[in-house]
Amino acid sequence: MGYFRDNVERVAGYTPGFQPKTTDVVKLNTNENPYPPSPAVLKALAGIGPEQLRRYPDPAGNAFREAAARIHGVTPANIMCCNGGDDLLSIAIRAFCEAGRPLAYPVPTYTLYPVLAALEDCPTIEVPFDEQFNLPPALVKSGAALTIVCNPNAPSGTCVPVEELASLADELTGVLLIDEAYVDFADRDGVELVREFDNVILLRSLSKGYSLAGLRFGYAIADADLIAGLMKVKDSYNVDAVAIALATAAIEDQACFKANVAKVRADRAILTEQLQGLGFDVLESSTNFVLATVKTGSAASIQEELAKRNIYVRYFDVPGLDDKLRISVGTKQQNDKLLAALKEVTA
Amino acid sequence: MGYFRDNVERVAGYTPGFQPKTTDVVKLNTNENPYPPSPAVLKALAGIGPEQLRRYPDPAGNAFREAAARIHGVTPANIMCCNGGDDLLSIAIRAFCEAGRPLAYPVPTYTLYPVLAALEDCPTIEVPFDEQFNLPPALVKSGAALTIVCNPNAPSGTCVPVEELASLADELTGVLLIDEAYVDFADRDGVELVREFDNVILLRSLSKGYSLAGLRFGYAIADADLIAGLMKVKDSYNVDAVAIALATAAIEDQACFKANVAKVRADRAILTEQLQGLGFDVLESSTNFVLATVKTGSAASIQEELAKRNIYVRYFDVPGLDDKLRISVGTKQQNDKLLAALKEVTA
Repeated sequence: MGYFRDNVERVAGYTPGFQPKTTDVVKLNTNENPYPPSPAVLKALAGIGPEQLRRYPDPAGNAFREAAARIHGVTPANIMCCNGGDDLLSIAIRAFCEAGRPLAYPVPTYTLYPVLAALEDCPTIEVPFDEQFNLPPALVKSGAALTIVCNPNAPSGTCVPVEELASLADELTGVLLIDEAYVDFADRDGVELVREFDNVILLRSLSKGYSLAGLRFGYAIADADLIAGLMKVKDSYNVDAVAIALATAAIEDQACFKANVAKVRADRAILTEQLQGLGFDVLESSTNFVLATVKTGSAASIQEELAKRNIYVRYFDVPGLDDKLRISVGTKQQNDKLLAALKEVTA
Repeated sequence: MGYFRDNVERVAGYTPGFQPKTTDVVKLNTNENPYPPSPAVLKALAGIGPEQLRRYPDPAGNAFREAAARIHGVTPANIMCCNGGDDLLSIAIRAFCEAGRPLAYPVPTYTLYPVLAALEDCPTIEVPFDEQFNLPPALVKSGAALTIVCNPNAPSGTCVPVEELASLADELTGVLLIDEAYVDFADRDGVELVREFDNVILLRSLSKGYSLAGLRFGYAIADADLIAGLMKVKDSYNVDAVAIALATAAIEDQACFKANVAKVRADRAILTEQLQGLGFDVLESSTNFVLATVKTGSAASIQEELAKRNIYVRYFDVPGLDDKLRISVGTKQQNDKLLAALKEVTA
């Protein structure tokens, strides 16, 4: 018997996007927001004293739960704080899945899902999207204990209508987790589904819309009974005192949030058009990134050439994605640098 | 089929110690350090800029790993950063345990262990300590995939010799995790065991010795192969950018750390003697708390009476502990207030 469980031995682990140490690069590979977080966040940071560091935090992060509940028109009992959205994915798979209780999701999507399932030794049912990334009808028949739909989806950037998710939630016998990590950049979210269905969990992240990827803060929105069950599975103190204070300040500054999101959406439209002008196929994006299909030449070599110029974009060496580049929407200046380099590289 | 796994439905969840919101209380119930964190931590906090919040953190927290490796005389490959010590407990149980791969530990001890095992649906083997909290010889024969020894133990405060842990590590076929959350207040730690054995994991926390309970930062020290396996199980970004920076500053200021620990140890000796003078039985403690056995009257009612006076100590309503109070060592002033109130309450 080895020290580790066999399924843990077998799993390769998840590879996060490359994080260059220097800051004088054009970093469009991990979907960070190009704008700084709200000044209210920095004010909250300056207000942290030794006493908050010395004492245990509020285990439930109630200050944040109350703020988020107000903004979404739900109650604090519908909110659970998480150490980043990934924490919620891990909690949900441990809460609902095991041998005989599979996890289902459409593919291609966030590549962490199968890694977390493998760590829990839970079977997965992968249902392919069509080329337009419509919700696969077969998903409803999977019989899974947990179905995850990333919406908007990564890395396609595409969105499926809330009405289709409502039908799915209605017909599923298990839980539907909608990974809304990127929903801040879409036209519409799924909060209404939480009011209607007792089996829907929304995953939210402050990494993208609120420019707080460094803080690791996400949250769940769901039926109060589901939240109560998930709270048993989370670590007692899964979010720290600094994160609670800064996340609360961030979500309370909706004006700053909306202004940054509006800038990213406007620049996304321009970037999409410019990439299409360079001969890439680009799907309509509802996120803060675009997925560009390389029509002539190799996506891998374009990524390498860009990296040599200190411009980082994301390439996935997997079937169905290996002719594509996922490019975060940067500032206007960053996007211009990318375009200029792409012109050079693809010439 | 319910939404949750049956074992998750059944588990009651862990109840953290009470966290009063006001600060004008004598809080001796959750073993926080009574002294503020190092000034270097506050300086690091003041140095956090919007760019660190906006970008993803280093997934491995290498700045901290390097600092901790220097201090312990190991390599960064022997260190894994965790979102508090509890994060490591959860990671280890998920990495090593499942049905057929039990978890073993001596009891009474930290009551989170069985909760985490139940969440993973893994059997537990509880081996009772004797009255002096000596390491139970039966532990070695359990056949467990993972054995946890809390050393110094909570809530007894007692310590078993490193030599006995070495024998245990040598004879076990599985992994030995030594929960050293309180070892900063003991005479000796187990770092030498990591150099000698490939199946030993030390759990460390910055909550107690470094006065950073609010920050949620712990770490593992272990053989590099064990660490590599555990890294696959942890969340990709389990510690945030602020926590990495502050934890690194804290561990680098060994002078402040040692001074605070020395004060707590000196006051622990005084508190122990004073409690014995009031008629309590008190075990010799190697931690920042003492376990006091109530000889006349009820521990539960003493705790209640103290709480009415805004003095909080920990009472566990479980067999073997229900005649005891766990009391954190506070400042001299806090300890004096506790003693005065105890005199009143037990008179």
